Amino acid sequence: MDFPSKLIENAVVELSRLPGIGKKTALRLALHLLKAETDTTANLAEALAKMRFDITYCGTCHSISDSAECSICANQLRDHSTVCVVADVRDVIAIENTGQYQGVYHVLGGVISPIEGVGPSDLHIDSLVTRTTAEGSEVREIILAISPTMEGDTTAFYLSRRLREVEHLNISTIARGIPMGGELEYADEITLGRSIVERQRQAR
Amino acid sequence: MDFPSKLIENAVVELSRLPGIGKKTALRLALHLLKAETDTTANLAEALAKMRFDITYCGTCHSISDSAECSICANQLRDHSTVCVVADVRDVIAIENTGQYQGVYHVLGGVISPIEGVGPSDLHIDSLVTRTTAEGSEVREIILAISPTMEGDTTAFYLSRRLREVEHLNISTIARGIPMGGELEYADEITLGRSIVERQRQAR
Repeated sequence: MDFPSKLIENAVVELSRLPGIGKKTALRLALHLLKAETDTTANLAEALAKMRFDITYCGTCHSISDSAECSICANQLRDHSTVCVVADVRDVIAIENTGQYQGVYHVLGGVISPIEGVGPSDLHIDSLVTRTTAEGSEVREIILAISPTMEGDTTAFYLSRRLREVEHLNISTIARGIPMGGELEYADEITLGRSIVERQRQAR
Repeated sequence: MDFPSKLIENAVVELSRLPGIGKKTALRLALHLLKAETDTTANLAEALAKMRFDITYCGTCHSISDSAECSICANQLRDHSTVCVVADVRDVIAIENTGQYQGVYHVLGGVISPIEGVGPSDLHIDSLVTRTTAEGSEVREIILAISPTMEGDTTAFYLSRRLREVEHLNISTIARGIPMGGELEYADEITLGRSIVERQRQAR
């Protein structure tokens, strides 16, 4: 694509490095910014740069944070004996938005994936084990909230092995089954099969 | 949506002001930037700010430009007697990418739209008339390359009226008809009707 301006071209090239944004979309975004007030662009550029350079990670749970301890770990009203283990910060945000969880988190920073060269030592697994086994640790339950993919299941299996020696520790996995509003006939066989085997007794 | 960090929240809010980008996509983009090297974000922020603050518009054709005269108007190899009138800079880029046009452009900056309160005086119409009628003007042909929508047709009609008094000036419109690869049965009636009435004789 030819551009009438180097400035536009640079902006389009940088925008199209973002995931899911191609050259055409990038051009549309750039021209939108040109039409909008200068403040829109100034605020966007500043917010992105500030986010990237000023953000830190919580020393306990490795979630993104504005300070050395994230607001969830610092909150004494939350249940610090229950730790929900997730792959990514996005999962923390998703679970927080359900409003159903009162415990704390541990962000692994990914899942074990031999194909992409991600091993256990590349993830925050040692710090989870330390956090759980350290003297005076108040952790009593680990909830594995990892996506049920091949890599996710491998990671969950590895974590169970690492943690099974810890006394008085309950390890659970988030429930799997037919999603709310899901149609049985469109569910895959493995999900449907497991949801029958692991059927839940109804309260009477 | 709750965010574990004010910095992330600000970035998401600013990103989601862009057209076609909702909160979820904005969060995905923000987390992508956090995982990527700091340079990616620094370059993006700088390219956007530079584009918005340093860009100028060509004094002749009103296209975006890095200097007072755009590279197309400054190019003496192009045919300055033919002016292609378009609504938007995006159209200049689209036509340039066909590689089929050797003339110059005139960017109106929009189309006449009473509903959105855009009148002829809000567009670069007077400068087009001046450019065409000025003494010593070399303009001999005006190609109206405006989208065939209600507003576009109104704008084209208005321009034809304003320019019809100019002597020795040919005014043309880009060809309309069935697009390449288009199926006749899916074409709308007006397009199909016009493409029969305005049929083109085949060279033998």
